[in-house]
Amino acid sequence: MSADVLSRLAEVIESRREADPEQSYVASLHHRGLDVMLKKLGEEATETVIAAKNPDPDALVSEMADLWFHALVVLSARGLHPDAVLAELDRRFGLSGIAEKAARTTNGRRSG
Amino acid sequence: MSADVLSRLAEVIESRREADPEQSYVASLHHRGLDVMLKKLGEEATETVIAAKNPDPDALVSEMADLWFHALVVLSARGLHPDAVLAELDRRFGLSGIAEKAARTTNGRRSG
Amino acid sequence: MSADVLSRLAEVIESRREADPEQSYVASLHHRGLDVMLKKLGEEATETVIAAKNPDPDALVSEMADLWFHALVVLSARGLHPDAVLAELDRRFGLSGIAEKAARTTNGRRSG
Amino acid sequence: MSADVLSRLAEVIESRREADPEQSYVASLHHRGLDVMLKKLGEEATETVIAAKNPDPDALVSEMADLWFHALVVLSARGLHPDAVLAELDRRFGLSGIAEKAARTTNGRRSG
Repeated sequence: MSADVLSRLAEVIESRREADPEQSYVASLHHRGLDVMLKKLGEEATETVIAAKNPDPDALVSEMADLWFHALVVLSARGLHPDAVLAELDRRFGLSGIAEKAARTTNGRRSG
Repeated sequence: MSADVLSRLAEVIESRREADPEQSYVASLHHRGLDVMLKKLGEEATETVIAAKNPDPDALVSEMADLWFHALVVLSARGLHPDAVLAELDRRFGLSGIAEKAARTTNGRRSG
Repeated sequence: MSADVLSRLAEVIESRREADPEQSYVASLHHRGLDVMLKKLGEEATETVIAAKNPDPDALVSEMADLWFHALVVLSARGLHPDAVLAELDRRFGLSGIAEKAARTTNGRRSG
Repeated sequence: MSADVLSRLAEVIESRREADPEQSYVASLHHRGLDVMLKKLGEEATETVIAAKNPDPDALVSEMADLWFHALVVLSARGLHPDAVLAELDRRFGLSGIAEKAARTTNGRRSG
C-alpha cells in the first residue's frame, strides 16, 4: 500500500473543484461553500464514533475514509495541502527522527 | 515531505500502547479505554470545525493534526492500520489508476 | 412562552413513534434505529457550532431547535423523558433552591 | 418536575457571566470566549452519542444535561434566551395548537 494516497487524493480534489457541480461531488461541495463541508466533516466524525462503538470493522474503515476525505476537502477549501498536517505530525512525534534511527538500525546499529 | 508519516505514526502508537500510562499519552488513552479515545476524536473534530471558521491557517493545521492523530489511536484500539483506510480511499477514487494514467499521459512511463 | 414545550414535544414524539415511517419523520427515525438518530444529533451539534460562528442569530436558533428536537428523539429511543435531564440540571444547579430563595426574599413564603 | 428549569438555568448563567472566572465555571467560559464554549458543546454532543451507545441510562441523562447546559451558555454568549428555541419548536410542531386542542377536548374552553 503506497502511502502517497493522501497526496493523490488531494490532487483529485483540486482538479475537481472547478468541475460541474452536477457531475462532481467535490465541485458541489465547493459550490455550496465551507459551512457545508464543515457540516459533512462533523457528520462523518460522529459516524466514525458510532461505527467504532459497533462490532463491524469494515464499517469503521468506511466511515474513517469518509472523515479523511472530507478533511482533505476542508483543507483544499482553505488552500492547504495534507502535507502541512503530515509535517505537523512529523514535527510533534519526531517521525523523521524515527525513520533516521530505523535507518541506523538496519545498517548495523541498534536504535534502543 | 515523505507520505509515510501515517504509517510511522501508527508504529509509534502501537509501540506506546503498553507503556506506562503516566509517561505516555497513548498508553494513558489505551488505559482509559475506547470511549475516552472517541470523546477525544469528537472533540478534535469540533475544534477543527471551529478553526476552519477562523482566519488562522496554522491553527487549522494544528487541530487537523490532533484529529488525525486521534483517528489513528482509535484505529489502533480496534486493531486496524491506517493502510486499511488509505486502501479504501484508493479503491473509491481509483487513485492508483489515476496516477498511472497521469504518468502514461505525461511521458509514457510509469511514475512508480 | 410556556416552558412546557419540551414536555409537549416529548409527547408528540412518543405519539408518532409507531406511525407510518413514510408519513412521520419521528417514525422514520425510530424505524431506522438509534445509530441514525445519533448521527442526526451529532450533525445538528456541528451545525449549531457553525451557526454560532456566523452572524445570523435566527440560523443559530433554528439549528439549536434541531439539536434539542433530536436530543428528545434520542431520549425517547432510550425510554427516557426530558424531565430526567431537567431534574439533573435542577439538582446540579440547585434551581428549585434558587426559586425558593427568591420566593422567600420577595414575600417570606415558600414557593413550593 | 417544573418545566421552568431552562428559564431558571438561563438566569443563573446570566447572573454568573460577570463573576470571578476563578470562582465560577460560567464566568470562566465567558472569559475564555465563544470558541471554548463551542468546543465544550461539541465535546458534550460526542459524549452524549457515546453514552447513548452504552447501557447505563443515568450516564446518558448526565451527558445530556451537560449538553443542554452548554447549549444555554452558547445562547447566552450570543445574547439569546432558551425561550427563542422553545418558541421555534412550538412553531414547528404546533405545540400550543396541541395544548389548545387538548384543552378543547377536555373542557371545551381555550387554554390560552
